[in-house]
Amino acid sequence: MPTSPRPAAFKSLLSTAHELADEAAKVTMRHFRRPIPIDNKAVKGDFDPVTKADQGGELAMRKVLKRTFPSHGILGEEHGTTVGDGRYQWVLDPIDGTRAFISGNPMWGTLIGLTDKAQAIVGVLDHPFSQERLWSAETASYHRRGDAPAKRIKTRTCPDLSRATFMSTTPRTFTSKRNSAIHTMITDQVQLVRYGGDCYAYGLAVQGFVDVIVEPGLKPYDIVALIPIIERAGGRVTTTDGDSAVNGGDVVVTGDPKLHDAVLKMISKL
Amino acid sequence: MPTSPRPAAFKSLLSTAHELADEAAKVTMRHFRRPIPIDNKAVKGDFDPVTKADQGGELAMRKVLKRTFPSHGILGEEHGTTVGDGRYQWVLDPIDGTRAFISGNPMWGTLIGLTDKAQAIVGVLDHPFSQERLWSAETASYHRRGDAPAKRIKTRTCPDLSRATFMSTTPRTFTSKRNSAIHTMITDQVQLVRYGGDCYAYGLAVQGFVDVIVEPGLKPYDIVALIPIIERAGGRVTTTDGDSAVNGGDVVVTGDPKLHDAVLKMISKL
Repeated sequence: MPTSPRPAAFKSLLSTAHELADEAAKVTMRHFRRPIPIDNKAVKGDFDPVTKADQGGELAMRKVLKRTFPSHGILGEEHGTTVGDGRYQWVLDPIDGTRAFISGNPMWGTLIGLTDKAQAIVGVLDHPFSQERLWSAETASYHRRGDAPAKRIKTRTCPDLSRATFMSTTPRTFTSKRNSAIHTMITDQVQLVRYGGDCYAYGLAVQGFVDVIVEPGLKPYDIVALIPIIERAGGRVTTTDGDSAVNGGDVVVTGDPKLHDAVLKMISKL
Repeated sequence: MPTSPRPAAFKSLLSTAHELADEAAKVTMRHFRRPIPIDNKAVKGDFDPVTKADQGGELAMRKVLKRTFPSHGILGEEHGTTVGDGRYQWVLDPIDGTRAFISGNPMWGTLIGLTDKAQAIVGVLDHPFSQERLWSAETASYHRRGDAPAKRIKTRTCPDLSRATFMSTTPRTFTSKRNSAIHTMITDQVQLVRYGGDCYAYGLAVQGFVDVIVEPGLKPYDIVALIPIIERAGGRVTTTDGDSAVNGGDVVVTGDPKLHDAVLKMISKL
């Protein structure tokens, strides 16, 4: 692509993405597994826990960006959109999996994405509790834990739904008739169904342990960071209609591109 | 209880339980996140992955027991029952959450329980990947991560289902009419529903982050280790009929004993 950043620019962008993850982790981990009284403000049926960790984590990242790339745009889950005057937009979710977070479950993560004219070009998925970080370099994706050396990661071969492991955060988000039909179609056919995981599930897919993920109703900040990580690990990600997932929506991820073709074909016949 | 082991004996039993966890972890972690080809022997509809890790982990624990307490009985998930000539029986599950394990999901754990005439008196729940260990001492329960000091853990106050966080491994195990009714009754009323987690969910309950767990069809080795950890952290565990969970079955765990009363009462009216 002629519009891709030059290697030196890419390196600087990726390095900043890592710095954002480091800064967010300092804030989020201060709040993780602190006792949460059950009489918090959450209202039954409209449970959207927004913690200090979430807001503080995003502010810490915005502070870095203001200093490093003041002209860049920012779309954050907590503090909305900052319009930039350049081609780049950072897409930030300080805590993907807030429900996991408030339950003490370590599978939440921080998502840091960067788009260049609506193409997701940089992605970092950080899990501060388990000290795991996954990211996309220019042509490959990597996983690192703690101080161990980074390892290149790849999705696994699995062209057939009948042999696949399926993950999704919860069956309870497949509420529309179409999504419910997609959920039933896939879970009836796969070898293994696992719920829970939020963003952690994508990390398992890019490491070759999970073959298909479907999540309805994603926002851009739920998926932008993951797109380059998935694609550069050999996987595929689109909406259930086969469009780019950069704006979120009902999203299908597979490790094996052939499985993606098969799943989209099955969905189109529902 | 006049039959309780003396403090010195208890200390020795607990120390051995920790040694079992250490030895099992050496084996299981050698196999965790190794690539698993999708053409393994698992058969659709009868998916019961038994890994080398599971079998080897149990053998490592049996070796310790043979040396340390040769007269004790052993009930293991993988290698069946060894009849002892004393009052004690060890109840071992090297990998609780084999489906999590093969999916690369870190929330599996090793369960080490000890019964004294059908009373669960010692429990260890070990999570080798996250380096977390939970256990019951004589009168309290503890959590330790890595080399950090152990912290006493307690369940939280939550007498009302409407404010509770519910966890269960998957809605797909609530297959009987009665269990399906229990699942619907609880998930319709609680504030937050989370799936996934296997034994990790109990660890979150005893740390005060999850209020109610229901798991149908447990085996003794799925629950015996957890009983003393739950009870000595202030929680309660029985079958859905209110009987001892020491033989497994359909199990209800709550952090707050008042919530347990309330849930059993609701179940009795179904």
